[in-house]
Amino acid sequence: MSQKIVGVKASAGVAIGKAFLLTAPDMQIKTVAVEDAASEIHRFEEALERAKADLQQIALRVEKEMGAEQADIFRAHLLVLEDPELVDTVKDKITQEMTNAESALHDVAQAFIGLFEQMDNDYMRERAADIRDVTKRVLAYLLGVNFFHPGSLTEEVIIVAEDLTPSDTAQLDRRYVKGFVTDIGGRTSHSAIMARSLEIPAVVGTQTITSAVQPSTLVILDGHEGVVIIDPSEEEIALYTRKQAEYAEQKAELEKLVHNPTITADQHHVELAANIGSPADVAGALANGAEGVGLFRTEFLYMGRDDFPTEEEQYLAYKQVLAGMGDKPVVIRTLDIGGDKHLSYLDMPEEMNPFLGYRAIRLCLDRQELFRTQLRALLRASAHGNLKIMFPMIATLEEFRAAKAILEEEKQGLQNSGVAVSDRIEVGIMIEIPAAAMMADVFAREVDFFSIGTNDLIQYTMAADRMNERVAYLYQPYHPAVLRLLRNVIEAGHSQGKWVGMCGEMAGDPVAVPILLGLGLDEFSMSASSILPARKQISQLSREEMAKHIDAILQMSTSAQVEAFVKETILQEDI
Amino acid sequence: MSQKIVGVKASAGVAIGKAFLLTAPDMQIKTVAVEDAASEIHRFEEALERAKADLQQIALRVEKEMGAEQADIFRAHLLVLEDPELVDTVKDKITQEMTNAESALHDVAQAFIGLFEQMDNDYMRERAADIRDVTKRVLAYLLGVNFFHPGSLTEEVIIVAEDLTPSDTAQLDRRYVKGFVTDIGGRTSHSAIMARSLEIPAVVGTQTITSAVQPSTLVILDGHEGVVIIDPSEEEIALYTRKQAEYAEQKAELEKLVHNPTITADQHHVELAANIGSPADVAGALANGAEGVGLFRTEFLYMGRDDFPTEEEQYLAYKQVLAGMGDKPVVIRTLDIGGDKHLSYLDMPEEMNPFLGYRAIRLCLDRQELFRTQLRALLRASAHGNLKIMFPMIATLEEFRAAKAILEEEKQGLQNSGVAVSDRIEVGIMIEIPAAAMMADVFAREVDFFSIGTNDLIQYTMAADRMNERVAYLYQPYHPAVLRLLRNVIEAGHSQGKWVGMCGEMAGDPVAVPILLGLGLDEFSMSASSILPARKQISQLSREEMAKHIDAILQMSTSAQVEAFVKETILQEDI
Repeated sequence: MSQKIVGVKASAGVAIGKAFLLTAPDMQIKTVAVEDAASEIHRFEEALERAKADLQQIALRVEKEMGAEQADIFRAHLLVLEDPELVDTVKDKITQEMTNAESALHDVAQAFIGLFEQMDNDYMRERAADIRDVTKRVLAYLLGVNFFHPGSLTEEVIIVAEDLTPSDTAQLDRRYVKGFVTDIGGRTSHSAIMARSLEIPAVVGTQTITSAVQPSTLVILDGHEGVVIIDPSEEEIALYTRKQAEYAEQKAELEKLVHNPTITADQHHVELAANIGSPADVAGALANGAEGVGLFRTEFLYMGRDDFPTEEEQYLAYKQVLAGMGDKPVVIRTLDIGGDKHLSYLDMPEEMNPFLGYRAIRLCLDRQELFRTQLRALLRASAHGNLKIMFPMIATLEEFRAAKAILEEEKQGLQNSGVAVSDRIEVGIMIEIPAAAMMADVFAREVDFFSIGTNDLIQYTMAADRMNERVAYLYQPYHPAVLRLLRNVIEAGHSQGKWVGMCGEMAGDPVAVPILLGLGLDEFSMSASSILPARKQISQLSREEMAKHIDAILQMSTSAQVEAFVKETILQEDI
Repeated sequence: MSQKIVGVKASAGVAIGKAFLLTAPDMQIKTVAVEDAASEIHRFEEALERAKADLQQIALRVEKEMGAEQADIFRAHLLVLEDPELVDTVKDKITQEMTNAESALHDVAQAFIGLFEQMDNDYMRERAADIRDVTKRVLAYLLGVNFFHPGSLTEEVIIVAEDLTPSDTAQLDRRYVKGFVTDIGGRTSHSAIMARSLEIPAVVGTQTITSAVQPSTLVILDGHEGVVIIDPSEEEIALYTRKQAEYAEQKAELEKLVHNPTITADQHHVELAANIGSPADVAGALANGAEGVGLFRTEFLYMGRDDFPTEEEQYLAYKQVLAGMGDKPVVIRTLDIGGDKHLSYLDMPEEMNPFLGYRAIRLCLDRQELFRTQLRALLRASAHGNLKIMFPMIATLEEFRAAKAILEEEKQGLQNSGVAVSDRIEVGIMIEIPAAAMMADVFAREVDFFSIGTNDLIQYTMAADRMNERVAYLYQPYHPAVLRLLRNVIEAGHSQGKWVGMCGEMAGDPVAVPILLGLGLDEFSMSASSILPARKQISQLSREEMAKHIDAILQMSTSAQVEAFVKETILQEDI
């Protein structure tokens, strides 16, 4: 009889195939006294170099295949191996205790992991997972054991593992790996995110899959439902084969929309754009039918390096994106560093509340040399496409005016030196601080556009850090307080003839889309993979019908009420 | 010829008198090898105990004379001396290095001070100052040198010092100390705050006063202007004697208003209430003419102890405040712990952004046993006065409903056991989260009142931590975004017949008062010493005239514009 195991939906799709049990190699560590600390340190350094070389290769391949954001995971791993606190502590331990490199590395890594795991927040726990992953890689070289090697697969399988590290996931060969199932992990774990990027069906957090399944047993994996069926019956195989076909058909259906504009049922056009993190993401955006780039986060240019990127490096990256998108609009956000994003070569103050601190435009207006370099690169690149420049974390009109004045100065300077600069660059702001949302009417007179950054706006409006598990329940995108602010921003923009976009996670959320349409949002910017489903959803919704619901929605008392109303009345889901 | 030195205004008033140079005792530390670590540790422990006994006495006297908030400074000092990290590190150092206690303590303290001073925020730097202050006290006992002793003064003087620690300030004898001047410190340093509490004129941060003045030289200190005149001329003495008389007259004038209600020039009554931190503050509130208590912060009951206060302890404290205020309204805020306020006996998560974290009502709804104990104490105390209960950090209606339901349950329980509970307790919320300000209309249907907590509301609205120097410029009480939220809250409250108060620093600010009056604020709660000046200011303002300015003010673009308008047009100040 077949056995059904339920886990967490990590990546959509249905896969049917033989289980391939990915067991961790034996990495038992023995503590051995050594006589020659120097040669032990040498062994450690060698293993370190080999692990780094691996990671560099993986990062490059991942960047090409999956984009910059995924590659950043491996750049972060590289940083761990370059962290003198870790490396020097291991070397000191070898020398002081005359112990072997394996044992010293293991003990030091455990201490770091313990420290990060104790901290009660997701971000720090991810750091612990990073250290565990890279330490294993170095230990494998020290112990001479083989890491899982993608080349070993020669037939189609479903990978079954206790957990998949990001490096495991990155090495999966899409030709043979039809899906994966793990014991641990959640929807936002790195492996789940990468599975969605790779479009490999996946179920995580099943607790028991590794003990429930035998090697080569047939399994069905349904990433839509988060279900795994071990040793399925004929009927089940038939059922899921049909499901698989339906899913493929839906995908094909969506793919037909790639070159269509986004038109509501009542013939209004809205723009569906992509959020991207590097020039490598342009191809994916276009393949998914993006009508533009609604948010190009420029932080990637600054990360995983030893010093600031030069004007030339930045110019080339911006030009690549602009040229790649042709005449489609590209909104490039100026540097948003600070908060939870730090650069090893930029000295930043220790802050008690970094989300309420020195970041983004606040830092750029203070460290103008950084800002001016970026602006010059952007201005030069503007000749190659349809550039819109966006300033993040604007709270006051003075900030916008100061940023704009600096931009104008740099533009004058370039033009005086005979450099070509586009004369149609729009300049807008992110609306992500409640003060800016409240003052949208005042800003609308001076900006060319607004783009609402809902991730931060919701966080400040509710006074709740969404990365903090204890208060994550207060991160409520449908809360009427948030929706009222959105209406204020959209109405203020329109009353001055300015377009209003959104580049937070909310823009691609099927429950939020009807509300945003009703509010009159002009541009929706989201991860590339959400564009086609959103285009389809929007083609079935009438903007005028949605607008009729808005007054009622904004009078509701709670987020739960709004969500139930949209699901029941508009999406007509069974609840 | 006389010499003029300019510093920072720390506490108002004029003083004329001989300079008394308070020089630090010689505390040079020699490092000496010791043979008997145990006896050295014993010496350290003895000095520690004597310093602690001093601090306990000072805390008690300060609480009686100046109130709980000032006393908390010394309770914090006691905590430093009880911190095992500090104490045990010193003992370990004595044992391991066989060194004398003075040297061990000095080195360990310096390491801690260095650590805190590096951190780029005021709060942590205050911690460094605390450690320096208490360490000196212990070192003085170890070295056998005398600390400044208040009993040594026998004539009226003006104290001149490099810096005054909170303990120095607390020991000043008001009979003899007519004022003080220091080289270092700012308007919000502990000694400045204590000077205002003690009503001693003070100028701080002069940089040079200790080198410019000789002992017993005549000096004039003008705390209004932040000016010190050394060796003044006859004319200057005459001028400042007149100023002194004028100031005394103004004070006497204000004191006549103590028993008056607060009536605007156009005969509207508003309530001026006091913010207090302990039952000891009631006397000061009444002496300053408070018409009620607009905010009783209950945290003091929980601080500086080893365990939660019992229901009975809380009951007695609440009863004392309610009975002390007679039939005047007393708004008691339920526990607002978390954020930057921690309890040593309550395990709290490490948070990346504590101001956006697990605090106040979020913690109380989660740790209900704490909350229920406090609510029972409040309900029992309600029989002794005019109690209003206020929940802090409410973001959503669900939170208010949950808190209110728990209150109702506890009320039922008490009544069922025959305990007397007032039947006129009002239940309201702090408005300090933008979401609550946006949804005030929805809340107004269910609460009895609003009290606007501007300190937090401004911080979240502007997304700027006001304790963080780098972004403190964004803490803008007059920003039109903040004022628009205030109007929304006040109008929503009034439309449901509910009163609206304010208990942030803004309520007593002379520039904000005319705006708040125009917006229709019903209750202004502030530090006791601001009440009489505010009463006088309000008696000269017409609410209807102020209301006429509101539309124009809310259409302004920036905080600077609002401030200039109020100062020029309403207050008619020369700018």
